[in-house]
Amino acid sequence: MLEFLWKSETRPWRVIVVGAGFAGLSAARELEKRRDVELTVLDRSNHHLFQPLLYQVATGGLNPSEIASPIRSLFRDSPRATVMLGSMTGIDRRKRTIQIDDSGSTLPYDYLIVAVGGRTSYFGHPEWESRAPGLKTLDDARNIRQGVLLAFERAEMEEDPEIRRRLMTVAVIGGGPTGVEMAGALAELRTHVLSREFKRIRPEDARVLLLEAGPRLLSGFPEKASATALSELGRLGVEVLLGETVEDIGTDSVRTNRRSLSAENVIWAAGVQGHPLGSLLEAPLDRAGRVKIAPELHLPHDERVFCLGDMTSLENRHGKPLPGVAPVAAQQGKHAARNIGRLIDGKRPKPFRYFDKGSMATIGRKSAVAVLPGGIVLSGWTAWLGWLAVHLAFLVDVQNRLVVMFRWAWAYLGWKWNVRLIDDVQHHPSPPATVMSSPTGAGLPG
Amino acid sequence: MLEFLWKSETRPWRVIVVGAGFAGLSAARELEKRRDVELTVLDRSNHHLFQPLLYQVATGGLNPSEIASPIRSLFRDSPRATVMLGSMTGIDRRKRTIQIDDSGSTLPYDYLIVAVGGRTSYFGHPEWESRAPGLKTLDDARNIRQGVLLAFERAEMEEDPEIRRRLMTVAVIGGGPTGVEMAGALAELRTHVLSREFKRIRPEDARVLLLEAGPRLLSGFPEKASATALSELGRLGVEVLLGETVEDIGTDSVRTNRRSLSAENVIWAAGVQGHPLGSLLEAPLDRAGRVKIAPELHLPHDERVFCLGDMTSLENRHGKPLPGVAPVAAQQGKHAARNIGRLIDGKRPKPFRYFDKGSMATIGRKSAVAVLPGGIVLSGWTAWLGWLAVHLAFLVDVQNRLVVMFRWAWAYLGWKWNVRLIDDVQHHPSPPATVMSSPTGAGLPG
Repeated sequence: MLEFLWKSETRPWRVIVVGAGFAGLSAARELEKRRDVELTVLDRSNHHLFQPLLYQVATGGLNPSEIASPIRSLFRDSPRATVMLGSMTGIDRRKRTIQIDDSGSTLPYDYLIVAVGGRTSYFGHPEWESRAPGLKTLDDARNIRQGVLLAFERAEMEEDPEIRRRLMTVAVIGGGPTGVEMAGALAELRTHVLSREFKRIRPEDARVLLLEAGPRLLSGFPEKASATALSELGRLGVEVLLGETVEDIGTDSVRTNRRSLSAENVIWAAGVQGHPLGSLLEAPLDRAGRVKIAPELHLPHDERVFCLGDMTSLENRHGKPLPGVAPVAAQQGKHAARNIGRLIDGKRPKPFRYFDKGSMATIGRKSAVAVLPGGIVLSGWTAWLGWLAVHLAFLVDVQNRLVVMFRWAWAYLGWKWNVRLIDDVQHHPSPPATVMSSPTGAGLPG
Repeated sequence: MLEFLWKSETRPWRVIVVGAGFAGLSAARELEKRRDVELTVLDRSNHHLFQPLLYQVATGGLNPSEIASPIRSLFRDSPRATVMLGSMTGIDRRKRTIQIDDSGSTLPYDYLIVAVGGRTSYFGHPEWESRAPGLKTLDDARNIRQGVLLAFERAEMEEDPEIRRRLMTVAVIGGGPTGVEMAGALAELRTHVLSREFKRIRPEDARVLLLEAGPRLLSGFPEKASATALSELGRLGVEVLLGETVEDIGTDSVRTNRRSLSAENVIWAAGVQGHPLGSLLEAPLDRAGRVKIAPELHLPHDERVFCLGDMTSLENRHGKPLPGVAPVAAQQGKHAARNIGRLIDGKRPKPFRYFDKGSMATIGRKSAVAVLPGGIVLSGWTAWLGWLAVHLAFLVDVQNRLVVMFRWAWAYLGWKWNVRLIDDVQHHPSPPATVMSSPTGAGLPG
């Protein structure tokens, strides 16, 4: 019955990887190469999510499944890997076991990698979450898509110009890469797709706002990239408000230190914090609840438990914190797996060094900014093509890569986003009564 | 503000089409050609659904959006058409208005087409619905996909062979085209996709049952087609049980007149009934709650209100009821639109005649049955290629057509279904405790 287990004279080392994001997946990929490791990949969902393209699901450009790959598929040809659907809910570091789900069942490990990602941080205002969804999961993306599309539908039937304007306003909070990409995609959705299909509302009635508390967009990029992003977003019609600190989010408005904005949809792209699971690991946490890990990527004082990616906090050689981006997570995964290999082989683990290959953010069609190592900033066409190539190359699944390429080409040639389902059709709110009596003002036929 | 309204000396005729399924969409397409008609298309969802491929969404072959086209997109270039999101909740035939949603708002019409489709019928057992979902909407398809995939995940972690067998059993109830296509697709999903990715459960542990109360499958097809379907399903490993009447559906079993079957997932493909909206039209209904319409497709005694498709009941010239299939609905739509044109032009409407171009059902890869006019039965490769061509041709959206073609080619060449998201990850049930203590039986490394 246990025919999937690798047979050997010595018992294999049990390594559990919790979370199949960029960090967990790249760790598991490296670990499965070792014949003396028996790998278990545990994730609460059955798919690896390609988060950098999540904003395109939220704006109707891609399907959820196109940026998600079933984890089982990815380990189909790995005889020593077991994929399990479930959540880690506790740990006993002394006995070297983790608890799974709420059933109290446990799983023993020799080495453990915990990499379950970060959570959206509302800076002490959890009550804002329902009004301003973050963009971390497929559910988040679907919610945002649903909210924006439904607001346009309601605006089309609305007579009151003030309400219509509110329905057609989307405020994106946070001017980092996610906020910039989201705002750009929303502006293009509005201008090029919806404007052709609605008969009453017009694109110039719709507003996309991007609010950033700091003095510039993309604060992690060089100033030149920030300036490019600002002017490119302006060209697309996004209203960028800098130095704007959010003080409250109400049912249909956002209040900042400077003004009150009326907006039906608010999207939160401002903060990331650690995962609640981090606090169970009995390790020091930073102010944002992220696990402070050793340079070798394991917990301080426990070489059996590694913790990686967005849920952790680590500084580089120069004392600068590593950014919460996919390349950091992926490189950490590989490094942690190799360190486990070294420990198994009786060697000392090595400290992690992030090799920064650059960063990029797309703004819209034919427009992106890219920062190469050494601080060289590219923008426009060149950066955009680079962005396309990098993102396609990193989609783990070939079928998804081809479909995404096709959808992008189609959108590029025809300006047609097709993934615009409003899912939850039973529960959409009733349109206002005023319009219905005579939506077109026409009388009886004569 | 009403610049989208067609300007003319005479007032246009207001025609409302409720429901953008095959009937409503083909009616609207025909009506938009007339310059004296001001068209409103009302649907409770924002997309037209290509129901014949819904079973492929349920079995993970296609994405929801790939068989759904935004209704707004379809009428983008129609200056006299308005698309509205909402439900018809009532009618005043004397005043010629319909009520929309629960807000009490009304919309006036000169001619009305109601075509909101059928509902799944549980033959007087509505309590079975939660256990045995039908296959009418995208939500249904997603539920089925979720249920089947989750059961396989749980089976992988289950030690008790009896429970594992139950988890791996899917029972499809109803041997019509939907049931046959569903059972065939499930058998292929099991054999060719899941078997390669799970390490403990094996395809031969999984069962797909197809239960039919009558003496043969595809009762609307000639006997030869039924025999082909039976043998082809057998080849795929589907257990077909004929003459099996369902008497009860419990939490984990199905009881028939002959036996009790243990099955985690039960899919209902047995019955269709009228739509509740039909009873609001003040027209005669048949036993299944479908509106009995005049041969001209309007309500008896009301030439202003047409009713079409699966929610209606109509006999052909030979007294045989028309089947509830897409071609009937589409032809009725076009005919109803033309009859409205005739009435506007002061002519008499004509009775509808269904032009039967044949029917088909796919069973699996390279296997289908097709019945041509005159009763000629095709099967195997030829029928399968015909099925592919017809279904691709009738997908209304070009982008979807290309993506579906690509996914089919991919699945054909590589046996890889990719759309296998388990959506609702937060709420999946905990795996059984027994397995967890030592999933592989391996001890400490030594």
